Amino acid sequence: MIVHEDLSRWIAQFSHAVAARDLQRIGGMFADRSYWRDILAFTWDLRTFEGKEQILHMLDRTLADVRPTNWSLVPASQVDNSREGWITFDTALGRGAGYIRLTEGLCATLLTTLQELEGFEERTGARRSRGAEYGVSNDTRNWLDQRRENGAAIGVTKQPFVIIVGGGQGGLALGARLKMLDVPALIVDRHSRTGDQWRARYKSLALHDPVWYDHMPYLPFPETWPIYTPKDKMGDWLESYAGIMELDVWNSTACTGASFDESTQDWRVELKKNGKPLALRTRHLVIATGNAGKARVPQFPGAGSFAGTQYHSSQHPGGDAFTGKRVVVVGSNNSAHDICADLWQHGADVTMIQRSSTHVSRSKTLMELTLAPLYSDAAVAAGMTTDKADLLLASIPLRLLPDAQRPVYQEMARRDADLYSRLEAAGFTHDFGEDGSGLYLKYLRRGGGYYIDVGASELIADGRVKLRSRVTIGQIEPAAVILSDGSKLAADAIIYATGFGSMDEWIADIVSPDVAAKVGKVWGYGSGTTGDPGPWEGELRNMWKPTRQTGLWFHGGNLAQSRQYSRYLALQLKARFENIGVKRLD
Amino acid sequence: MIVHEDLSRWIAQFSHAVAARDLQRIGGMFADRSYWRDILAFTWDLRTFEGKEQILHMLDRTLADVRPTNWSLVPASQVDNSREGWITFDTALGRGAGYIRLTEGLCATLLTTLQELEGFEERTGARRSRGAEYGVSNDTRNWLDQRRENGAAIGVTKQPFVIIVGGGQGGLALGARLKMLDVPALIVDRHSRTGDQWRARYKSLALHDPVWYDHMPYLPFPETWPIYTPKDKMGDWLESYAGIMELDVWNSTACTGASFDESTQDWRVELKKNGKPLALRTRHLVIATGNAGKARVPQFPGAGSFAGTQYHSSQHPGGDAFTGKRVVVVGSNNSAHDICADLWQHGADVTMIQRSSTHVSRSKTLMELTLAPLYSDAAVAAGMTTDKADLLLASIPLRLLPDAQRPVYQEMARRDADLYSRLEAAGFTHDFGEDGSGLYLKYLRRGGGYYIDVGASELIADGRVKLRSRVTIGQIEPAAVILSDGSKLAADAIIYATGFGSMDEWIADIVSPDVAAKVGKVWGYGSGTTGDPGPWEGELRNMWKPTRQTGLWFHGGNLAQSRQYSRYLALQLKARFENIGVKRLD
Repeated sequence: MIVHEDLSRWIAQFSHAVAARDLQRIGGMFADRSYWRDILAFTWDLRTFEGKEQILHMLDRTLADVRPTNWSLVPASQVDNSREGWITFDTALGRGAGYIRLTEGLCATLLTTLQELEGFEERTGARRSRGAEYGVSNDTRNWLDQRRENGAAIGVTKQPFVIIVGGGQGGLALGARLKMLDVPALIVDRHSRTGDQWRARYKSLALHDPVWYDHMPYLPFPETWPIYTPKDKMGDWLESYAGIMELDVWNSTACTGASFDESTQDWRVELKKNGKPLALRTRHLVIATGNAGKARVPQFPGAGSFAGTQYHSSQHPGGDAFTGKRVVVVGSNNSAHDICADLWQHGADVTMIQRSSTHVSRSKTLMELTLAPLYSDAAVAAGMTTDKADLLLASIPLRLLPDAQRPVYQEMARRDADLYSRLEAAGFTHDFGEDGSGLYLKYLRRGGGYYIDVGASELIADGRVKLRSRVTIGQIEPAAVILSDGSKLAADAIIYATGFGSMDEWIADIVSPDVAAKVGKVWGYGSGTTGDPGPWEGELRNMWKPTRQTGLWFHGGNLAQSRQYSRYLALQLKARFENIGVKRLD
Repeated sequence: MIVHEDLSRWIAQFSHAVAARDLQRIGGMFADRSYWRDILAFTWDLRTFEGKEQILHMLDRTLADVRPTNWSLVPASQVDNSREGWITFDTALGRGAGYIRLTEGLCATLLTTLQELEGFEERTGARRSRGAEYGVSNDTRNWLDQRRENGAAIGVTKQPFVIIVGGGQGGLALGARLKMLDVPALIVDRHSRTGDQWRARYKSLALHDPVWYDHMPYLPFPETWPIYTPKDKMGDWLESYAGIMELDVWNSTACTGASFDESTQDWRVELKKNGKPLALRTRHLVIATGNAGKARVPQFPGAGSFAGTQYHSSQHPGGDAFTGKRVVVVGSNNSAHDICADLWQHGADVTMIQRSSTHVSRSKTLMELTLAPLYSDAAVAAGMTTDKADLLLASIPLRLLPDAQRPVYQEMARRDADLYSRLEAAGFTHDFGEDGSGLYLKYLRRGGGYYIDVGASELIADGRVKLRSRVTIGQIEPAAVILSDGSKLAADAIIYATGFGSMDEWIADIVSPDVAAKVGKVWGYGSGTTGDPGPWEGELRNMWKPTRQTGLWFHGGNLAQSRQYSRYLALQLKARFENIGVKRLD
């Protein structure tokens, strides 16, 4: 109790002030530079309020409805001082959790999240199903009969409340959440087998994030699982997951179009299932096609005349066919590095074309400096749970994140100075983000711009993989590429490791350019850095939150985001399914 | 610390006495009626020593080799007194865990188990594989390539060290343990798909044990899992499990014969894989065909003349074909009750033939009175882990178990008195075991003799399922059965829910009657009760321990036993694989 003295006192006072809706007293409890991030609990949105004025304005408009009570501090682990910790609270609609930090007795950051809706809790733990009922009824259907009936009905005799486009980790995680909340949902995926979006990628791919960070909802990876999951094993896991969670997935099903009917307030979704067109109706359409769903290939002059093999990195099967071949790999982020290493392993003569600066984090250093305190064996042993780690990570407002991350990357630059200087000597252009804030912020701002080094940097440093930097391709000839500096590279193959389009591009294709324009950009938070223009949003744009198009949602990101934010997207869909009076803050 | 004062003092003194090999002092620390159960740690066997004399004799013969040290008490949960708790210790070969109970300062029961071999720990947790190695090697195989190569090699170019016959929960649990210990093992199963041994059983089957008791090793059921797993869901889980754990399973493969070659000290195992005969060699043969692996059908006179349908309960697909039909179900244990209920649901005219007395436990009462303190949401919430619960359950010597169980069943008789009196009024003969010790001991003694009531008892009590008790079948006619009391029942079908043969019968078939005779009975512990004649063994006969046939082992039981004892069987196989000097106590 002693360690939490300040916090406990603050929470008790806050609790009274909130109950009394005394904004003046509340205002006095926040630091001038303070931040309140709310996920659904107060705003039915993902919003970060900056400074007392915004915070009090938000409270003024929400407190009467939200009526938060029972604020209390969660017994700590990992956080051993009197200034920060996990909290729980109740609202008029459900139960919340969050994280708080004090500075000199005043709140510096507060995270509030809605965790479950009262009366609409998920069917887990003490609320799990019995499986077999006591007593003999006239219903002779067993579990398998019911599972088959439900599977055959959804999308046929029973329209789903939610259609999720994309059955990767994002779609499946959300599907599992909705299943546990009894919201009828159908997942459609263009691949013929669940997990194929992973299996189909280049042979050497493994997750760059470690296992503790990657758990799916409900079914954590077992203690036998490798740290960095190989792609085929990941595909198999997703396939098992869909079965274990009893998800309704239509494979070999492409979404070819979708239009929102204003009169009925639902979607007509056009699908091609095993090549056969059909249309479904649904209230909510979730785009979970992933950050790697839409290949982006730059249009270089003369590409059509190239006589050799050329394709996007997403089509790279592995280097087997390239032994002795001259291969040009365009790009210098994760896929480019992995594919260069793979080609080198297979005895190809590989040249990487680095068009712009890349951040490089050595995998081990990145793990140690960033994730280990939250997601590691050591963290688990110290009592850190995935849920607590997720809340803590979510609790740092995006405005403060660069300052928090910068020292990490200064330390990384120090630890791996030798690698960086050898990369520089090889001509490799690298950076730590334009404001020195490193990998995670590059990921949030533009979804790329980095390589998590698992070995390819050494190949570049010592020239086993050749490098042409600060150039791009000017012209492609039948058997060569001409670089922008005029030099010529003979080439048997060109692989475009040039990244993926944003999920909003996909909306223009399947819904309409008008809706795409109305909805706007997806991902990034208006940081004003390369690839992420302002205005400042303070949250990832359009991700997991209501968009300007009724019934249209975006879900995705890495495994950790798919796990954590599927909870909040599922709660928003459940609230709409149950017609709970959701008052989203304007 | 205060609550453990007595225990801590005892352990400290014991530790000194053991280090000094001072048998006299050790003797003074055990109660006259004391029990020491050892699993591998001291004896490389499963043995229970009763009384000071046996205990000291065991120590006299083992201490010099085992050299146990570092005895310490595990911080408790659930056990809040000063008289019992979990312990850990080290031996010359590895790390141990156990459980101890004191009575008036003296040891009443002690369990010691070997948990892992020093230097040969399983590849889990901090020892898990990396999945992707740092650095680029010349090995271009990815995880899938290696998995396929290993899968194709085992049993073909690389002979397994262990062949496990039976790919149910027992075989798969052991396979997973061996995989994590890097012992090459091959599982063969006659069904075409992993999990089919569950899927193929009668339609209404669900596990009678609750989820908390049923976890497989490493991969616990998720919090979404139903309490009583339906059989098809169980089958699917096992199939997912085999994939997730990367087990080498040959489906559609029957073991048709096995002979031990004394000169080479290995087995020649004859298989029929997809109908094609082949022979493998292996050092160790594990029979994991299950307690329900070999159907037992009594030979009633005239059975061959019966004109209707007749089969063993294991072949019952479900009651769909029996609407309006007269069905005689022979037997009165779990399968008989479940099948009677299923037939009644489908509108059949069902008569149960109860040949001998049956114990009935209502599922809810059984759960509350027996498993809940160890295996339940409440137990988990109170800090009980599956490993701790397993140790605690294993810590009660079989000699003491009846006395410990009797009050439970007296309470059950009181709580469910109404059900029992209505069953009696319907003519049903029931018991609580011949010494009143109830279900679990019936299970350990003879693997049956009970029904865990999930509703069929009500059907019998109110006559919806007809009952003929204290009779058997005397004669079968083309359209009727003649009971031993001379009465006649018209019948369109006869279902023999008459149980399963013991695993030792299987040895006579596939190895030889001589080896079967040498090995002796499997299961039961010599309690001297019906179906389990003496002499007293104090441990389940031949289960998970060396048998009189070199290289022949038995594994099985329910999910909980498959989980818990697969650990010890795997350790014994690992020790042999690594040629560790295993000194089994004679």
